[in-house]
Amino acid sequence: MTLKLIEQHFSFDGVQSKYSHYSEVLQCDMTFSIYLPSNQEKKEIPLIWWLSGLTCTDDNFSQKSGFQRLAEKHQVAVIIPDTSPRGENVADDAAYDLGQGAGFYLTATQEPWAKHYNMYAYITDELSRIAAALIPNFSGKESIMGHSMGGHGALVIGMKNAAKFKAISAFSPILSPSQVPWGIKAFTTYLGEDKASWKEWDASELIKTTDAPPILITQGTGDQFYPEQLDETTFLENAKVTDAKVTYKKVKGYDHSYFFISTFLEDHFDFHIEQLS
Amino acid sequence: MTLKLIEQHFSFDGVQSKYSHYSEVLQCDMTFSIYLPSNQEKKEIPLIWWLSGLTCTDDNFSQKSGFQRLAEKHQVAVIIPDTSPRGENVADDAAYDLGQGAGFYLTATQEPWAKHYNMYAYITDELSRIAAALIPNFSGKESIMGHSMGGHGALVIGMKNAAKFKAISAFSPILSPSQVPWGIKAFTTYLGEDKASWKEWDASELIKTTDAPPILITQGTGDQFYPEQLDETTFLENAKVTDAKVTYKKVKGYDHSYFFISTFLEDHFDFHIEQLS
Repeated sequence: MTLKLIEQHFSFDGVQSKYSHYSEVLQCDMTFSIYLPSNQEKKEIPLIWWLSGLTCTDDNFSQKSGFQRLAEKHQVAVIIPDTSPRGENVADDAAYDLGQGAGFYLTATQEPWAKHYNMYAYITDELSRIAAALIPNFSGKESIMGHSMGGHGALVIGMKNAAKFKAISAFSPILSPSQVPWGIKAFTTYLGEDKASWKEWDASELIKTTDAPPILITQGTGDQFYPEQLDETTFLENAKVTDAKVTYKKVKGYDHSYFFISTFLEDHFDFHIEQLS
Repeated sequence: MTLKLIEQHFSFDGVQSKYSHYSEVLQCDMTFSIYLPSNQEKKEIPLIWWLSGLTCTDDNFSQKSGFQRLAEKHQVAVIIPDTSPRGENVADDAAYDLGQGAGFYLTATQEPWAKHYNMYAYITDELSRIAAALIPNFSGKESIMGHSMGGHGALVIGMKNAAKFKAISAFSPILSPSQVPWGIKAFTTYLGEDKASWKEWDASELIKTTDAPPILITQGTGDQFYPEQLDETTFLENAKVTDAKVTYKKVKGYDHSYFFISTFLEDHFDFHIEQLS
């Protein structure tokens, strides 16, 4: 792999870096951001993944969440992928909730999306190998969190790879994509009309059959997309089937923004660190 | 005054708001952001001002610094003005370091700038009255901090109004604007060629004659604008004249970005709170 460093900043004693690279899986140039804590005690370092929401890049979380303070405090690395394949030759759509910036963390099967829209393999395989190579003293322990579309991604990727991820958490996630406008539009486009093919990308389906890692979800009651896109009813009902360890918290008044995420991020980090220790 | 609320978010139990209003002083529409802590104990609330740097608006600090956690913890309000007058009818320049986004927190005397570029009076008079009206249980105690051009602004406004501001702090401030490219360009343009008129807007001059409040400055050694625009030599030398209480900290490797600011903001808040208590 060839990585090009495009930005690097000291932050809370650790180092925040942004790289670009050619992705073999996505067949396009990609950027990602990674934070490495100072690790002055030469401990083994675990890794937390952050998956962002619609319209985001890797920059939103690195610039707006304040996560670096928590990552340094707990001595954990954090990697932030972009939200879709990118570039002039990559299929796109004028809408904000489809195409570039809206990869939905799956494996597209429909044209013209199938060539590039393979975010699932990019994260679980290619970027996982890159991350492991970038972290000195990597403990091998990983967990995953995300927001909105990225909350859906964290839940799906985390449950489909329960041996790899020790914990999953999500802020205002799309919990039942097969039932809500964002998900129906994306799944119809990327996966086709056959709803049977949607099930492996729907957290509310996966939770019925998976021995899932512990899950923490936080949802603001002032969220402009709640409950239409983010309803939790089916997911929580189906979690009973496997007796999954799900903690679902509603917080009064908070919206869908990074002001909400930054407020409750410490709670999520505490949850992940407990599982990663 | 008529304020229009354009954004509002819960953040760390308090409320982050963004308003627009017509400024009589600047003769244009302006935006500003203000954070009010939860104040569940009904205490008297002090106010910290944040002045941003070149190219910024009130959004940079509110979105990237993570200050809300500290403001809530210490139960202090924070107000963030924009960095210049704005609008189609307001004089501007194509350069990033002049005109809109580069008001330098002074009172312009030269045409075509004199009509609108009066950020000094806007902050010390008009916006001060607005802030006081927005803060329930306002203690009347204020302090001021800023970054780069806003660090210059905090120092100049703080020293020219030493009775109003209990503390001043700055991240990578322009300490001797009369001697460095950014300051020479702005002062020549806004104040004219007569360098005598520059002195009342130069922190290194003011520190020689002012009974200044306690001052804290943090400067990264990896800052791309240091020392050319941000040299501290004259300021620290002149501070000896009045035996001013100046703490100047250099931090290794940190640059000019909000990754730097967010890392050391807790240190600055602790300093301000001590003076505001």
